[in-house]
Amino acid sequence: PKKILAKVVEIARQTKTIGQDDPRRVIHSLKVGLVLTLVSLFYYFQPLYKSFGVSAMWAVMTVVVVFEFSVGATIGKGFNRGLATLLAGVLGVGAHHLASMTGKVGEPILIGLFVFLQAVVSTFIRFFPKVKARYDYGLMIFILTFCLVSISGFRTDDILELAQKRLSTIFIGASTCVIVSIFVCPVWSGEDLHNLVADHIEKLGNFLEGFGSEYFEESGEAEKRDGKSFLVGYKSVLNSKNTEENLANLARWEPGHGKFMYLHPWKQYLKIGTLARQCACRIEALNSYLNSQIKAPDEVRQKVQETCKTMSTESGQALKELSLAIRTMTRAADSPNTHIINAKTAARNLISLLKSDSWADINLLLVVPVAAVASLLADIVICVEDIDESVTELAR
Amino acid sequence: PKKILAKVVEIARQTKTIGQDDPRRVIHSLKVGLVLTLVSLFYYFQPLYKSFGVSAMWAVMTVVVVFEFSVGATIGKGFNRGLATLLAGVLGVGAHHLASMTGKVGEPILIGLFVFLQAVVSTFIRFFPKVKARYDYGLMIFILTFCLVSISGFRTDDILELAQKRLSTIFIGASTCVIVSIFVCPVWSGEDLHNLVADHIEKLGNFLEGFGSEYFEESGEAEKRDGKSFLVGYKSVLNSKNTEENLANLARWEPGHGKFMYLHPWKQYLKIGTLARQCACRIEALNSYLNSQIKAPDEVRQKVQETCKTMSTESGQALKELSLAIRTMTRAADSPNTHIINAKTAARNLISLLKSDSWADINLLLVVPVAAVASLLADIVICVEDIDESVTELAR
Repeated sequence: PKKILAKVVEIARQTKTIGQDDPRRVIHSLKVGLVLTLVSLFYYFQPLYKSFGVSAMWAVMTVVVVFEFSVGATIGKGFNRGLATLLAGVLGVGAHHLASMTGKVGEPILIGLFVFLQAVVSTFIRFFPKVKARYDYGLMIFILTFCLVSISGFRTDDILELAQKRLSTIFIGASTCVIVSIFVCPVWSGEDLHNLVADHIEKLGNFLEGFGSEYFEESGEAEKRDGKSFLVGYKSVLNSKNTEENLANLARWEPGHGKFMYLHPWKQYLKIGTLARQCACRIEALNSYLNSQIKAPDEVRQKVQETCKTMSTESGQALKELSLAIRTMTRAADSPNTHIINAKTAARNLISLLKSDSWADINLLLVVPVAAVASLLADIVICVEDIDESVTELAR
Repeated sequence: PKKILAKVVEIARQTKTIGQDDPRRVIHSLKVGLVLTLVSLFYYFQPLYKSFGVSAMWAVMTVVVVFEFSVGATIGKGFNRGLATLLAGVLGVGAHHLASMTGKVGEPILIGLFVFLQAVVSTFIRFFPKVKARYDYGLMIFILTFCLVSISGFRTDDILELAQKRLSTIFIGASTCVIVSIFVCPVWSGEDLHNLVADHIEKLGNFLEGFGSEYFEESGEAEKRDGKSFLVGYKSVLNSKNTEENLANLARWEPGHGKFMYLHPWKQYLKIGTLARQCACRIEALNSYLNSQIKAPDEVRQKVQETCKTMSTESGQALKELSLAIRTMTRAADSPNTHIINAKTAARNLISLLKSDSWADINLLLVVPVAAVASLLADIVICVEDIDESVTELAR
C-alpha cells in the first residue's frame, strides 16, 4: 500500500510538471474534448442523423485521428486525409465499375488484383524520404479508402452514395479540427521552431559567456560548478536535429500567423540549427577541459587568460545578441558584429602572444591544455561568424 | 516535355536506389499487398461474410494501420490496438448502460459528458513521455473506440453484438499482421539496432585509423581527401539519437529471435550509442584540424607524429574490434584491450615527450594546432575506454 501511494504521488507530481512545463498541453486536451463532443452532436440530433446516418461516425473518427497538438500537424493530417480519401474514393469506384463488368466470377479476382497492386505500390512509395516527411499519413489513408470502397462495392450497390456520405463527414470532421486548432489558442509549429532555434543559440551564448571565468578564475572548485545550469544547457542542442526537421516540416503547412508570413523561409532555421549543432560539438570538447584534472599552472594561465576570456565572452555575447535578433525579428544592427570583431581581434592577439619569446622557459606539457582550449575557442569564433551570416540571411 | 521526361527518369532512379539500399522494403510492400488481399477474402466468401458482415471491413482497416515495417512496430501497434479496443469497448458499453438508465433526455447529456471527460484525460496522458514512446497509438484507439461505442449505443440496441464483432475482426486483422510479419522474411528492430550501433562504432574506428596518416603524412593535399569516405562516415553518428531510441522502443516488443533473447538488454545499446556520439563529437573537432590552413611545420610534426599516430591508429583498431565483438556477440577476448593499452601507453609517451627540453627553441604558435590535436586524441582514448567498458557489460 505504501508503494502504491508513492506511485500515485509520483504520477501526480509528473502530471503537474507536464502541465506546468507547457500549459498549452492542458488547453489542447480541453480542445480535443470540446471538438469531439461537438462532432458527436451529429448522432444525437435527429435532423443531422437523418442526413448522414451511421456515416456520422466517420466524423468522430476523423477528429480523433486528425486533431494534433500544433496547427501545422492538424492541417497536414486533415489535408492528407481529405485529399487521399477523395482520390482513393474516385479510383475505388472506378475499379469497382471496371471489375463488375467482368461478371460475378471475374469480379472478386480483378478487385483482389487491384487491391494487391495498389497496396504494393503505395506501400513502396511511403519509403521515399520526401513523401515520408509530408504525405505518409495520406498514403496510408489512400490504401485504406481504396480497399474499403472497392471491396464494399462487391456487397452493396449504393457505393456512390456511401462514398459521398463518408467524404462529406470526413470533410466536416477535418475542417472542424482545423478551424478550432487555428482560432482557439493556436499552437504554431513555426513559432515553436523559431523560439527553439533562438533558445539554442542563447544557450550556446550562455555557456561561452560563462566559460572564460569558469576556466581561468576559480580553479579546482568543481563542486561549485554543479549548480550552474548555463554549463549544461548546450547539451540539449546536440540532439536537436530531428525535432527541428519535424517542426520545419509541420510549419510548411501553416498559413501566415503573427510575425510569420506563409512560406516563411523555414529551411533557413534548419541551416542555423546545423551550425548551432556544430558549435555545440566544439563546446562539448571545450567542456571536457573544464573537468579535466590536468590544469595549467597559474603563470601559463595568466599569459593567455585575458585574450581567451575575451574570445569566449565576446563570442557568447555575439550569440546572445543574435538570439535576441532572431527573437525580435529585427535585423541585427551592427551590434553583434562588433562582438564578433572583438572576438576576432582577441584571436589575432592570441597569435601574436604565442609568437612572442616569453614562452621559452615554460614546460611545454603545461601549455598543452591551454593551447587546446585556445585553439577550440578560435574554432568557435569561426562558427559564430557562420551563424551570424546565416541569421543575417534569415533577416533578409 | 523534356522536363517531365527528366523528372520521370529521376524518380525511376530514386526508386531503384531505395529498393537497392534495403531490399527488405520491396519485400515489405509485397507482404502488405498479400495480407490485404488475404483479409479481403472475408468479403468475397459467403460463409465468412455471413458471420461478420460489414464488420469485416474492420479487419481491412486494422491491417492497413497495424502492418509496419518491423516486427516490433507491428506487434506494438497490434497489441495497442487490441488492448485499447477491448478496454474502451467495455468502458463504452458500461457508459452506455449507465447513461441509458437516466432516460431519453439525460442520456445524450451524460454520454456527452463522458466523451468529453474521457477525451480530455486520455489526450493529456498522451503527453507523458513514457506513454508517448510505447502507448501513444493505444490511447488514440482508446479515445476512438470509446466514442464510437458509447455514441453508437444511442442509436442501435445490439451494441454488444456490434462491439463483439468488431473486436473479433480487429483481432483477426492484427494477428494476421503479426504472424506474417514474424514468419515471412521478418525485419527485426532489435537486429537493426544491434547492427546500427556496431556500424557506428566501426565508422568511428575507420576515421581514427585513417586520421593519423591523413594528418601527418600528406600535408596540404586537400583534393585527394574528397574521395575518402572514411573521413566523413562519422557524421551520421552525430545525429543518431532519435533513430536509436526509436529502434530500442520497438525492439522491446519483439520476441526472442536469432541471437537475441526476449528482454535482451536493449538499453545497453543506447548507452553505447551515447558514448559513440560523445566520441563522434571529439572527432568532429579533430576533423576541423584536417582542413585548417594553419599547419605545424615538419620539425614539430615529426616530434609528435609517431605517438599521435599510434594513439589514433590503436584507438581506431580498438573500436573496430569492439564493433566486431558486438557484431559476432562474442565476448571480446583481451584483444581490444591490448589496443587500448597501446593507445594509453602512447598517450603517456606523449606526456613525457612534451616534458622533455627539446622544445625550447620552437615557436609556440606552431605547436598549438599539434598540441590541440594531441590533446583531443588523448580525450578520445578515454572515450574509447568507456565504450570498451560498456560493450563488455553488454556481453555479460
